[in-house]
Amino acid sequence: MKTEIPYKIYLSEEELPKNWINLRAFMDKKPAPLLNPQTQKPMTEEELSQVFCNELVKQELDDYSPYIPIPTEIRDFYKMYRPAPLIRAYCLEKQLNTPAKIYYKFEGNNTSGSHKLNSAIAQAYYAKKQGLTGVTTETGAGQWGTALSMACSYFGLDCNVYMVKVSYEQKPFRREVMRTYGAKVTPSPSNTTEVGKRILQQFPGTSGSLGCAISEAVEASLSKEGYRYVLGSVLNQVLLHQSVIGLETKAALDKYGVKADIIIGCAGGGSNLGGLIAPFMAEKLQGKADYKFIAVEPASCPTLTRGVYAYDYCDTGKVCPLAKMYTLGSGFIPSANHAGGLRYHGMTTTLSELYHQGLMEARAVEQTEVFKAAEQFARIEGILPAPESSHAIRVAIDEALKCKETGEEKTIVFGLTGTGYFDMVAYEKFHDGKMQDYVPSEEDLQKGLIGLPKIKE
Amino acid sequence: MKTEIPYKIYLSEEELPKNWINLRAFMDKKPAPLLNPQTQKPMTEEELSQVFCNELVKQELDDYSPYIPIPTEIRDFYKMYRPAPLIRAYCLEKQLNTPAKIYYKFEGNNTSGSHKLNSAIAQAYYAKKQGLTGVTTETGAGQWGTALSMACSYFGLDCNVYMVKVSYEQKPFRREVMRTYGAKVTPSPSNTTEVGKRILQQFPGTSGSLGCAISEAVEASLSKEGYRYVLGSVLNQVLLHQSVIGLETKAALDKYGVKADIIIGCAGGGSNLGGLIAPFMAEKLQGKADYKFIAVEPASCPTLTRGVYAYDYCDTGKVCPLAKMYTLGSGFIPSANHAGGLRYHGMTTTLSELYHQGLMEARAVEQTEVFKAAEQFARIEGILPAPESSHAIRVAIDEALKCKETGEEKTIVFGLTGTGYFDMVAYEKFHDGKMQDYVPSEEDLQKGLIGLPKIKE
Repeated sequence: MKTEIPYKIYLSEEELPKNWINLRAFMDKKPAPLLNPQTQKPMTEEELSQVFCNELVKQELDDYSPYIPIPTEIRDFYKMYRPAPLIRAYCLEKQLNTPAKIYYKFEGNNTSGSHKLNSAIAQAYYAKKQGLTGVTTETGAGQWGTALSMACSYFGLDCNVYMVKVSYEQKPFRREVMRTYGAKVTPSPSNTTEVGKRILQQFPGTSGSLGCAISEAVEASLSKEGYRYVLGSVLNQVLLHQSVIGLETKAALDKYGVKADIIIGCAGGGSNLGGLIAPFMAEKLQGKADYKFIAVEPASCPTLTRGVYAYDYCDTGKVCPLAKMYTLGSGFIPSANHAGGLRYHGMTTTLSELYHQGLMEARAVEQTEVFKAAEQFARIEGILPAPESSHAIRVAIDEALKCKETGEEKTIVFGLTGTGYFDMVAYEKFHDGKMQDYVPSEEDLQKGLIGLPKIKE
Repeated sequence: MKTEIPYKIYLSEEELPKNWINLRAFMDKKPAPLLNPQTQKPMTEEELSQVFCNELVKQELDDYSPYIPIPTEIRDFYKMYRPAPLIRAYCLEKQLNTPAKIYYKFEGNNTSGSHKLNSAIAQAYYAKKQGLTGVTTETGAGQWGTALSMACSYFGLDCNVYMVKVSYEQKPFRREVMRTYGAKVTPSPSNTTEVGKRILQQFPGTSGSLGCAISEAVEASLSKEGYRYVLGSVLNQVLLHQSVIGLETKAALDKYGVKADIIIGCAGGGSNLGGLIAPFMAEKLQGKADYKFIAVEPASCPTLTRGVYAYDYCDTGKVCPLAKMYTLGSGFIPSANHAGGLRYHGMTTTLSELYHQGLMEARAVEQTEVFKAAEQFARIEGILPAPESSHAIRVAIDEALKCKETGEEKTIVFGLTGTGYFDMVAYEKFHDGKMQDYVPSEEDLQKGLIGLPKIKE
């Protein structure tokens, strides 16, 4: 007898993972270490601890522990909105008339509206444990900033958010949600930091970028006693915390004896995708199972598909360590694509290395196609997706339509990272036919790479 | 051994109710019937069928069937976002340091952001089944309009929404969500209907009211072949559909052997409260159990606490049947209170009658106190509540604080009807100290009642 699979698979709170999985521990060839931009030597624990919380630095540098326990305090917070449902897209399958089985892990069922809360609460917890007063950070689409304000409010920490100016202007209500949770929000670049002033002088009227905002937030954390900087993506520690997504997804599939064939996620800095694929990729690396992984990025910021694999600055102001990653250059300022969370010039080192080894594919998609998929999905599956998440929906639909042609009954799993309630300006443009696609020319890409540091490896 | 109660009680999809419960069937003294404003005689099935879908008219007039089966198609849609979680507010309890146990039924985990979807999908289903082309409706806060657009998009029906002007202006993004689902949205009062034109002439510059918008939507449905009018609250049929909230809540509590003492809900037209209390009130009416029920309304629109119990028009334009209800008068236009969903001058007949019989209490609260509760709740429980829902939070907190004084371990259950993502203008006013309380004077109330019809009962 075949068990019928419900629309939504909810794990019980006891089934909430007790450990995060550390994907790097399963890699033979590890991601390249972060380098000190002055000495070009690997960043030490001591150096990193000036910027980041101590425990998070340990996690950042840990290439060998396969599992790291989730502290009880974090699990208790997780229980307020997790386990997140794994949803069978029965209605979408029917509409597409595809033999493929489509599942999505929905991370939008919390007020921050996205998966970002999984790492925000962990980072706030370690900051509190260390006795800090507060944290600083940047936010693009606003999802990370919202998540961090929620986490800080829960633990009673100050929260200072530098928000990329274009998002700040497109999403005025995001600021109010953050204020509801007690955060201070500054549009970036701003005049509150030296690096912000410098960028404003160099590029007057710039709409900002994640790279700029990171520089400002790092500077702000260094100039205040009892503060550290926290980051919502790119770092190893963030991928570690986000592995709760993949672990729950795998547990839910295993419960019903379902084996995924294709796993799809949108990729900005890589936190969602890295977290979603972690336990599956670990199996693949151990030769236990095979999966096809697809990273989806906007054609306007095509880090994996058109970037180079090299050491680069993580931020525009060049105050952060160097990371070896797929990059468009820290000087690359993407067009005002609405998927603010995907406008980062680089990609987490772990995913960069896996992609470089051919263990993962990548696809770039244009935003009008993405919004078509978003609207189709909203109408048939009910959930209004964030533009970022809709990149994954686009490719999931494309893959399901391929199955329709070939007749293959593949199981497709994708990450639905968040909701689009604060993205209605973008949806409005789409409805009014005013949305434009933008694909950088070769020349644009060359320009972005001009400032790439020369590193001897 | 005492079973530990999880943060969130999720029923399985098999435990989703198979029947709605019809509260009126359990009442000895039934709510007074709707009257034809011309003849002052009870509205007949035939008369109502000109405005409403046939099957919904049957439900509207059914005072005797205790249970009505939920069609499979509606249950299938419910499965996309139901059963909704019943959440134990462990963190809030701890913060309040109260011996009370607090639970809330969260209806915001769907894209419409509220409980309104429960009735929207039912009404769209019956309209489709009848072979109609489309439906017209009004919306206040925008939650009902969003829910109805989702439901219509699912069944392929046209959806025309008249949105109260003040909400239309305060919530521009709501319009875009409705457009995403294919709806046509018109700010009300408008020049597209005769009644709208008349109201605009009489009250130039009016910010509109639910009563006006209803009149426009009814007129629009009557003037188009293949259209019917649908309503998101007030009607018996809506309370019937919303009983899924109470049935799930009761099933979840029963599963863990928990008996509620106090049940609290916000009350605009009464759909959420009526649905939440339905199975509990049925027990109370049968003498099987006792509960204290509290309806919470804004002090700016105090229908139950300061209105009169009388036959009145349901809409400003006086095109609808007369209903016997607690009312402030169909001419009452409340101040621009931000809880748009609670700005209705009347109250569903069923709750009015139960309140009149002393089976339910009512409390009016001021909006700054409501937003204080909303922010406190958001920070500790994570969820950003809608202003409407926050009225219930306010009273739930007040009751829990009373328990702290008396030491009583009461079990408090309240309805968290929706999320506040589209209410950030109101939150901003609150943060900036610009929110004002407004309580109508006796004179204001007298003015509202001037047009009350004289009915011989």
